[in-house]
Amino acid sequence: MPEITKAKIGVLGASGYTGAELVRLLLRHQGVELALLTADRRAGQEMRDVFPQFSPFGLPKLVSIESIDWSGPGLDLVFCALPHGTTQKVIKEVLGKAPGIKVVDLSADFRLADPAAYARWYGHAHQAPELQQEAVYGLVEAYRERIRGARLVANPGCYTTCAQLPLIPLLAARAIDADEIVIDAKSGMTGAGRAAKEGMLFSEVSEGFHAYGVGHHRHMAELDQEFSSAAGREVVVTFTPHLVPMNRGILSTIYVRGNGGGGPQDLHAILQKHYMSEPFVHVLPFGAMPQTRHVRGSNLTFIGVVKDRIAGRAIICAALDNLVKGASGQAVQNMNLMLGFPEATGLEQVALFP
Amino acid sequence: MPEITKAKIGVLGASGYTGAELVRLLLRHQGVELALLTADRRAGQEMRDVFPQFSPFGLPKLVSIESIDWSGPGLDLVFCALPHGTTQKVIKEVLGKAPGIKVVDLSADFRLADPAAYARWYGHAHQAPELQQEAVYGLVEAYRERIRGARLVANPGCYTTCAQLPLIPLLAARAIDADEIVIDAKSGMTGAGRAAKEGMLFSEVSEGFHAYGVGHHRHMAELDQEFSSAAGREVVVTFTPHLVPMNRGILSTIYVRGNGGGGPQDLHAILQKHYMSEPFVHVLPFGAMPQTRHVRGSNLTFIGVVKDRIAGRAIICAALDNLVKGASGQAVQNMNLMLGFPEATGLEQVALFP
Amino acid sequence: MPEITKAKIGVLGASGYTGAELVRLLLRHQGVELALLTADRRAGQEMRDVFPQFSPFGLPKLVSIESIDWSGPGLDLVFCALPHGTTQKVIKEVLGKAPGIKVVDLSADFRLADPAAYARWYGHAHQAPELQQEAVYGLVEAYRERIRGARLVANPGCYTTCAQLPLIPLLAARAIDADEIVIDAKSGMTGAGRAAKEGMLFSEVSEGFHAYGVGHHRHMAELDQEFSSAAGREVVVTFTPHLVPMNRGILSTIYVRGNGGGGPQDLHAILQKHYMSEPFVHVLPFGAMPQTRHVRGSNLTFIGVVKDRIAGRAIICAALDNLVKGASGQAVQNMNLMLGFPEATGLEQVALFP
Amino acid sequence: MPEITKAKIGVLGASGYTGAELVRLLLRHQGVELALLTADRRAGQEMRDVFPQFSPFGLPKLVSIESIDWSGPGLDLVFCALPHGTTQKVIKEVLGKAPGIKVVDLSADFRLADPAAYARWYGHAHQAPELQQEAVYGLVEAYRERIRGARLVANPGCYTTCAQLPLIPLLAARAIDADEIVIDAKSGMTGAGRAAKEGMLFSEVSEGFHAYGVGHHRHMAELDQEFSSAAGREVVVTFTPHLVPMNRGILSTIYVRGNGGGGPQDLHAILQKHYMSEPFVHVLPFGAMPQTRHVRGSNLTFIGVVKDRIAGRAIICAALDNLVKGASGQAVQNMNLMLGFPEATGLEQVALFP
Repeated sequence: MPEITKAKIGVLGASGYTGAELVRLLLRHQGVELALLTADRRAGQEMRDVFPQFSPFGLPKLVSIESIDWSGPGLDLVFCALPHGTTQKVIKEVLGKAPGIKVVDLSADFRLADPAAYARWYGHAHQAPELQQEAVYGLVEAYRERIRGARLVANPGCYTTCAQLPLIPLLAARAIDADEIVIDAKSGMTGAGRAAKEGMLFSEVSEGFHAYGVGHHRHMAELDQEFSSAAGREVVVTFTPHLVPMNRGILSTIYVRGNGGGGPQDLHAILQKHYMSEPFVHVLPFGAMPQTRHVRGSNLTFIGVVKDRIAGRAIICAALDNLVKGASGQAVQNMNLMLGFPEATGLEQVALFP
Repeated sequence: MPEITKAKIGVLGASGYTGAELVRLLLRHQGVELALLTADRRAGQEMRDVFPQFSPFGLPKLVSIESIDWSGPGLDLVFCALPHGTTQKVIKEVLGKAPGIKVVDLSADFRLADPAAYARWYGHAHQAPELQQEAVYGLVEAYRERIRGARLVANPGCYTTCAQLPLIPLLAARAIDADEIVIDAKSGMTGAGRAAKEGMLFSEVSEGFHAYGVGHHRHMAELDQEFSSAAGREVVVTFTPHLVPMNRGILSTIYVRGNGGGGPQDLHAILQKHYMSEPFVHVLPFGAMPQTRHVRGSNLTFIGVVKDRIAGRAIICAALDNLVKGASGQAVQNMNLMLGFPEATGLEQVALFP
Repeated sequence: MPEITKAKIGVLGASGYTGAELVRLLLRHQGVELALLTADRRAGQEMRDVFPQFSPFGLPKLVSIESIDWSGPGLDLVFCALPHGTTQKVIKEVLGKAPGIKVVDLSADFRLADPAAYARWYGHAHQAPELQQEAVYGLVEAYRERIRGARLVANPGCYTTCAQLPLIPLLAARAIDADEIVIDAKSGMTGAGRAAKEGMLFSEVSEGFHAYGVGHHRHMAELDQEFSSAAGREVVVTFTPHLVPMNRGILSTIYVRGNGGGGPQDLHAILQKHYMSEPFVHVLPFGAMPQTRHVRGSNLTFIGVVKDRIAGRAIICAALDNLVKGASGQAVQNMNLMLGFPEATGLEQVALFP
Repeated sequence: MPEITKAKIGVLGASGYTGAELVRLLLRHQGVELALLTADRRAGQEMRDVFPQFSPFGLPKLVSIESIDWSGPGLDLVFCALPHGTTQKVIKEVLGKAPGIKVVDLSADFRLADPAAYARWYGHAHQAPELQQEAVYGLVEAYRERIRGARLVANPGCYTTCAQLPLIPLLAARAIDADEIVIDAKSGMTGAGRAAKEGMLFSEVSEGFHAYGVGHHRHMAELDQEFSSAAGREVVVTFTPHLVPMNRGILSTIYVRGNGGGGPQDLHAILQKHYMSEPFVHVLPFGAMPQTRHVRGSNLTFIGVVKDRIAGRAIICAALDNLVKGASGQAVQNMNLMLGFPEATGLEQVALFP
């Protein structure tokens, strides 16, 4: 292999699950070098102290964000895997000091383009409104070309990715009734992050199932924005998230009604054609349904369409790994576009099943 | 305690999960004696060989059904926990030889009252049509008085119980639009029984989630029958079952639209009033959502109602233990009515959580 | 049933898992009334806010310990399910103000009778040394008569119960080599309690297995004390605990060598004879091995003995539910003795499997 | 990349878990081409029908073994992932017809070199005794050079790999007492394969833990052979396998006594030095213990050594993924040696945690 200069990458927030997943993927990405890992509460420790699976690998020591001299090391791109809310301040500061760095933000801070919508959903004005305008929404299959030229990409949420990939082509084609969409979504526990909370303990989660955030989950704001944009009119969907006693995976079960006499097979045909050349979206044969386990650890989304027994209605399921296509894998996909790598570089893992 | 004569009970099909659950409950029921346990493939073995949790308990040895002299032992009631399809022949024979025995059937064989509906869903004519007419549908909260006088009770399915308990009072009150009901149901694995199939192996089920039987699950026939009966018109719902990597529990997430301006709070009020005096149905405060783990091992159903963000729509969740209220517990509840015991006898277990 | 005065019971620390398990068992105990529930951080809330499975039941509101007037309500017995360390101060104060109350303590604070051993293992002098001397070790099968007359009983640890029940009769009979005992123990997650810690999150525990506290787990102190007492000489065992991705259950795999030519069958015979009349210890036939799932939710311990292929060595497995026989069930068993109820009252639950 | 001729590979038994894992790994191995997949019961189907995770990938259709013309396609190497017992006949036939093919056998059929030992453990004479003599035991870290030149490699068992890697260097160094080794092993469910058996159903396995095959597991024969060879004397160990409710992973907890005053730190030093340059065996710092989740999906083995509180005794834990280093990963590692690829080709996956 010819000697090449690898892109220097930083991960802000490496002690959470999306941070660890970025490290897992980037360790095997031939075009990059992990040059910076931050974790404020664990600063000074080795990554292996926080995630022992990295014990055999050489990685930079964890540092705090405030200890970084941004004018210095010449990072090419940073991933920001910090909690919602604090992220906008950090990115504003980073880009203020090092305007040439590219950023893929995995938080929700830059996903909403409309300042009013942001304020309504989050209860306060955005603290970096210029960057909010600059940010590109990072659903690759919808915004690939804009992402190539972007400096700041807002990586989509896990639930929203799993609902947008099946629904956006159908809404754009005006193929379904935009007023009657029900999204019943189910997620594994890693989607809730690594913060120690009683409700996330093994004993609270194992051997049980429940809905949460019913009627008011913040991912709805992203759904509204992208669905309305695709449909060319305001779209408001019913969306209910549930917690599954598993680590990884989201399944969206979506109930739709075809427009203008279009039936389930027509919807399937639209999706199949739309995603024919996409490397990471796979539409199953009509009537087959996806399972989360079959995409575990991979960047793939599987989509299935089935005929409901009520005429004109279809049931669509989409499955992805919330830490990969729903977070860090999609973030690497964005990075590949932003840095000019082939889009699938470092994302070739075949799903780990069983 | 005064000396009493205990009712003699038989369990046909004691080597499956619902059979074992009947034994668990009846061992602690003060009014009954387990006099007969059958298991054709395991005939001659002890119950402890099939379910080691019963090792410390004295129980009758497993026998085959054909070895039983029905004119003999004077059973008061038998539970029939046999596979769908074979059951109708067995019960026909039992009641032919011992017409005085009462029967609670846990299979689907006698749940549909309409011979044509049975033939349509199961692909063949019913083989005991007179008994089909005689059978009473055993949803206690809906048919309590008829059950008291019944000789043959068809115990409802687990999915159907978990959908009927929240929906029947609303349909009977004409409070919801009967044309727009979506039931997204999720079940633990014990609902699939104990037959050894590849898709039910631990390694196939753990760490994953998927829908199955989409568009054509047989429980729909029961839903149609009871919903139409409650609503006084034909009702056809959308129903999608999913498998959760857990042993016990069903959660139904139900999407409805209120009729005539009635909102979610009105629906909640109807349910709360309807179930106020029921020992086994508990309506949570408005806005609270049930979890399957909080009813595990108990005969309780928890119901919650939440406002959707789309005006006029509500999201209703119901949770029960598929082996208890969804099968063997409801069967014992039926037995208690049929034999004149207080309805909750033997069903007082508090849920096992965590 | 004749009118009886029920014993008034308090549970200190009702918001943890052993507290909830006490409430589950005592709600169905015919001789007692739950008169007091404390939970300092949740004081003022209802038990159903902390454990929704109790929603249908009337229970006293949670209060803080310091708000209680101990001279007042005339409790007959309190269970103390508080963290290790703080317990000794609380019990000292309770018994100082209300000397007539009986106490079953589920913490480790009063399990070690020797002040020097306590100081060595816990790093500080005991703060209630008189009570330490008074306390009776609550392994019912070993100390039944002393427990009947006790005011303060130290309920054994879950791991220690699961090792002591199989080993104490063998050590007492001098049937095994006391210098070559290896105990490899595995526990479900509820044994770690309900405190929110990163290592106890679902995503950290599911789909994995590991040993912890290797070489220095505090339950060793209890093992030393009771094994040495049984053997009439100092006994120090090798003990390694592991975490299993399940909620409930402990399995101890114990490696022993028979003394004086005694083989595995002799060891089995000793255990079988010793526990023949015990209601909660069940010795399986020689060669059969217990599973934790078969005692889940019950107060039973199953013990199995198998021949190793190395002559003279045996492998013994014991299984119990860490929250029942390993904690709250054994505590109720102690209460029954202390208050004069039949020993099995309220503990008749059959295991919940599957 | 220069145009290269890829090695043509066959997988016999592609419908089982080790077969699927081979396909997962080989799909991303740059030097090979998957040219043949067999599955007798599923012949004629696509791999995606058997394992939907492969839906997006082009793979040869499944065929039956007997339909293959071995003189034809010029395979370079076949993996044999067939059940124990039938394998020896199949390989004998394959090598009879196509003597130039190399074979990595994942079954137990060629692991024992001694015909008498084979007959004793399996109850019948070996049916390909010449091949039994030819076969090289495929524990790469012990037999690397012999494997390079081998035609037939017997891939070690999962339990045995996880016990041999930590123990062989210690036995070879005479550092531990060979008469006092206890191996308490715990495995995830995929180790039991994909055959549909009642005891492997999700509902039978979840939320429980137990030992099995106690005293007579066939992996003992492999342990005896390799431990005796390493120690230069007969070694017989105590070995107890357990089933963990998880998919992947084996943890061996090993109890040893140091020889000649050697303590736990000395044992750790021997292992650390021995494995310093091995790509797939990682010795943790003294006192740290491995977890199976941290090697999930990778070809790594983690080893930890801890001091027991009994002087001179050490507790050693080893963790690996039973489907990777315990089966298919190690098989690919063997293939790499046999075909002259760099040893780690296609095995660079970082563990998937959480």
